Amino acid sequence: MTIHDRLDIYRQMIDQDLKTIPQVEKIPLFYEPIRYINDLPGKRIRPLLTLISGLAVGGAVSHLLYPASAVELLHNFSLVHDDIMDNDDLRRGEPTIHVKWDLGTAILTGDGLLGLAYRKLLETPGIHDLQMVRLFSNAMLEICEGQALDKTFENIPVVSEEDYLNMIEKKTATLMRLSCQLGGIAGGGQEEQIALLAEFGYNVGMGFQIQDDLLDIYADEDKLGKPVGSDLAMHKKTIISIRLIEKTGQAEYDMLSVEQFKQLLAENDILQEIKSMVDNYFEAAVHAANQLPENEFLAFLLEISAYIQNREK
Amino acid sequence: MTIHDRLDIYRQMIDQDLKTIPQVEKIPLFYEPIRYINDLPGKRIRPLLTLISGLAVGGAVSHLLYPASAVELLHNFSLVHDDIMDNDDLRRGEPTIHVKWDLGTAILTGDGLLGLAYRKLLETPGIHDLQMVRLFSNAMLEICEGQALDKTFENIPVVSEEDYLNMIEKKTATLMRLSCQLGGIAGGGQEEQIALLAEFGYNVGMGFQIQDDLLDIYADEDKLGKPVGSDLAMHKKTIISIRLIEKTGQAEYDMLSVEQFKQLLAENDILQEIKSMVDNYFEAAVHAANQLPENEFLAFLLEISAYIQNREK
Repeated sequence: MTIHDRLDIYRQMIDQDLKTIPQVEKIPLFYEPIRYINDLPGKRIRPLLTLISGLAVGGAVSHLLYPASAVELLHNFSLVHDDIMDNDDLRRGEPTIHVKWDLGTAILTGDGLLGLAYRKLLETPGIHDLQMVRLFSNAMLEICEGQALDKTFENIPVVSEEDYLNMIEKKTATLMRLSCQLGGIAGGGQEEQIALLAEFGYNVGMGFQIQDDLLDIYADEDKLGKPVGSDLAMHKKTIISIRLIEKTGQAEYDMLSVEQFKQLLAENDILQEIKSMVDNYFEAAVHAANQLPENEFLAFLLEISAYIQNREK
Repeated sequence: MTIHDRLDIYRQMIDQDLKTIPQVEKIPLFYEPIRYINDLPGKRIRPLLTLISGLAVGGAVSHLLYPASAVELLHNFSLVHDDIMDNDDLRRGEPTIHVKWDLGTAILTGDGLLGLAYRKLLETPGIHDLQMVRLFSNAMLEICEGQALDKTFENIPVVSEEDYLNMIEKKTATLMRLSCQLGGIAGGGQEEQIALLAEFGYNVGMGFQIQDDLLDIYADEDKLGKPVGSDLAMHKKTIISIRLIEKTGQAEYDMLSVEQFKQLLAENDILQEIKSMVDNYFEAAVHAANQLPENEFLAFLLEISAYIQNREK
């Protein structure tokens, strides 16, 4: 069985675990949209990071599924609320909850996902102190801060690279770091191992988000599943626009087509620069992972990292 | 100094503690509305319940302020999101966050309040196990379920009294019970004392909500600060409409004015019945409280209970 096949099996276990969330029969308005978003087929990157991180330090799948599902529920909470804020109609190719149901239901669904996330986390067998809950709560707050910064930047003409990196750390890298940390803790890892896993998750997360910025411009539209250039159209600050403004000194690229924008990026060598930035993050991730004990699961971590690095959507 | 004066001092301590929440300078879009809602003058009933419950079993104010602020933050989270769902423009006489800022900001503010609530709770000095966090998370989920049931009932012509009581338990009584339980735990109370405090909080909460239903019809509009009959207009299920349907067998009272509605209630003795229902809950609360150790703080608990029972808004 290849690593790829085994990752698929873990993914199915996560899918299955999310289905075990009890539904209260009398409250379909609450539990149906929760089930809907949890059932949408996804890559399950974050819970996979939790599972594999925990396995890499000697944990048991049966324990690790709890924090794994908890991070996926936390992720889904943020997706449901972000989709309202960004006015997105589609999520994973299906109607978003505020479209399929209504605004109030979508708000409540997000809130409920968060409550269920805490419940899952607190059910982790062997959880005895507050460390995991503290990390989880701090991450949750940072994710909100990151979303607020992202919204703030839409209305600011020029954002520094430092502020941008701080924003994506909170918005994206924090959750990937948390996913790895929780796996490490629930898996019974040593403090140093947990720190390495955190470093791995952080770097994968940073690389993931910057790559996301690139995909918005350079992806194959059919593979991406949504129009290219939507960040550009939404005035979202990305590393690309920030670098462009730094180099050209002009902040007026809103009127450009995606093709004209690409032309400008090529003229300024920006694609190459950012690609190497992404590579650096993934190299740092691999470097951290390679200091973990050598076992079969180390290869899985590296595989997930490579999978994310090479994704086309 | 009267009990009333001392409760005022505790209220100011809670106000003060809520102001200590650190603001991240660079994210005003996130922290300004959070501060705004926390600063709105309120009765602070729930955090007072936490403080006094804890004091009644021998706790220290400096410890108890943490869970007290946590329950107020949890309450404010639910208010901010509920105001969006109910399309309310005013909260405590001031514009709601989705009106003063915008929808996205209000969603994020609610989420942030919840994150801050967990952080406060987790900072409670001496918190060593997961009991408080478990109770908090279960209550949070129940509050969401209660809100979902309330919304569900708006579209159902007839709701049973049992379903209604289950809904208000989740929507209102759960948080008051939690407030008392957390105070009892953080105050170092014995298991039996904590159970009595929970019973006290539950009954105060049930009485509070049913009284709220009465106030919607019978309050002095100037004191209430909003038009009477708004539950009626919103098709909200209340104990009043449920009893009326039970007695008259007709569910069509939507077209009635508040005056006509009152007339119908008088003809069917409904006001008296519901008043005695409220009295029963408050009596049960007092009965539970009176089994706690006799000390000066017991009188405070009874005072809060009486204050809630006799409120006019």
